[in-house]
Amino acid sequence: MSVYLVGAGPGDADLLTLRAAQLLARADVVVHDRLIGPDVLELVSARTVCVDVGKVPGTSHTQGDINELLVELAGRYDTVVRLKGGDPFVFGRGGEEALALLARGVVVHVVPGVSSAFAAPALAGIPVTHRGASHGVCVVTATAEEGRVVDFERLANVDVTLVVLMGVAQRATISAQLCRGGLDPATPVAVVQRASLEDQLVVRARLDQLADLDVIAPAVIVVGPVAALDLGLDALVDELVAVA
Amino acid sequence: MSVYLVGAGPGDADLLTLRAAQLLARADVVVHDRLIGPDVLELVSARTVCVDVGKVPGTSHTQGDINELLVELAGRYDTVVRLKGGDPFVFGRGGEEALALLARGVVVHVVPGVSSAFAAPALAGIPVTHRGASHGVCVVTATAEEGRVVDFERLANVDVTLVVLMGVAQRATISAQLCRGGLDPATPVAVVQRASLEDQLVVRARLDQLADLDVIAPAVIVVGPVAALDLGLDALVDELVAVA
Repeated sequence: MSVYLVGAGPGDADLLTLRAAQLLARADVVVHDRLIGPDVLELVSARTVCVDVGKVPGTSHTQGDINELLVELAGRYDTVVRLKGGDPFVFGRGGEEALALLARGVVVHVVPGVSSAFAAPALAGIPVTHRGASHGVCVVTATAEEGRVVDFERLANVDVTLVVLMGVAQRATISAQLCRGGLDPATPVAVVQRASLEDQLVVRARLDQLADLDVIAPAVIVVGPVAALDLGLDALVDELVAVA
Repeated sequence: MSVYLVGAGPGDADLLTLRAAQLLARADVVVHDRLIGPDVLELVSARTVCVDVGKVPGTSHTQGDINELLVELAGRYDTVVRLKGGDPFVFGRGGEEALALLARGVVVHVVPGVSSAFAAPALAGIPVTHRGASHGVCVVTATAEEGRVVDFERLANVDVTLVVLMGVAQRATISAQLCRGGLDPATPVAVVQRASLEDQLVVRARLDQLADLDVIAPAVIVVGPVAALDLGLDALVDELVAVA
């Protein structure tokens, strides 16, 4: 009778929240995206039904289908978890799903997650804000509604760190528009691929080199002076003991 | 010998990450800020030393003092946790602490946390991005280095949701500058006070009413069409069972 919109964080299961882990352990059904990793799904109880609605290009799960599925499941089960990468309300389309559910009388709860927008840079040793280098951060995707590319020229003079999610395919356009808008072509950029996972890879360059970088999605693009920072953090903590 | 820069999330202990909870349980010493709540500190082992370095105005813990304290503790203990509200690299000055520690040869790890910048709006039923309303989000504080107020006129035309942290005292200036920069005075705003805690309070108004609102810090200010949304979420989940 309730749907929980739950953020799964950037990938590493240890970056789930305590509440997310509790919900995965007691859910009747978990509806998740394509990019949710196997370590996260291991936290789901063995008796629980898992549904992958990953929007792989060419498959049939539209957002409308997912909304309908959630409404139907809410009518059949007590606890439905809708598990989304990162945070459900940061480009997660959680707002649309919440509205669709509320319109049909379903109780909706939200459990914020660690957003890749901040965590991917952090795990690459890049603080998105840093005294003397950046007093703010602007997070956008490359593609807005109906496939329209976001106007990056407008973002060239914001004077804060720019974080672009889902921007790998559009990186030539992003770079060209930011330069045309007045951003220095020598501005540092970093592309963080598969953040928080064992094969995380960070590529650093200048803004005018972004188009030519050999990078693959999923990745987070960071633009601004902080992208040159590498705090040399040993981010991945493998030796952690279990909670006592 | 290691310092872990750990995000504590917006306040509710259930929004800690699994890794943060594991580290609190096994830390030798925990150095925390003023706004870390008692429920979070309950996760710290009874044998662990807790140091509150909250920067209350008028007290003596400068950032330099904190950096020195962390270096000193790292020499005496195996596992030092530096626990910060939200995420350590989103206005948490984690970058400065990391640099100070690295310069002294201390190994630094970072554990991202749920940032109040996204979680406070989410827990008020406001998705910071929402198709048709906002395709991005810009997060700033009201005050930059040396107490200088950030130039909000520059942010008036960004055309994404604006989230202002630590902005309550400067709300008249923020409102005036955004209007002067061209933002519609009727733009919806929401002020989320004590996000995620039992006495969370949300006040909604128009941008030109922001100065006159009766609100108190700590609070997160959201500016943009999404601030008018209220997804009616039942955000606080009290009945959760413990992890099986």
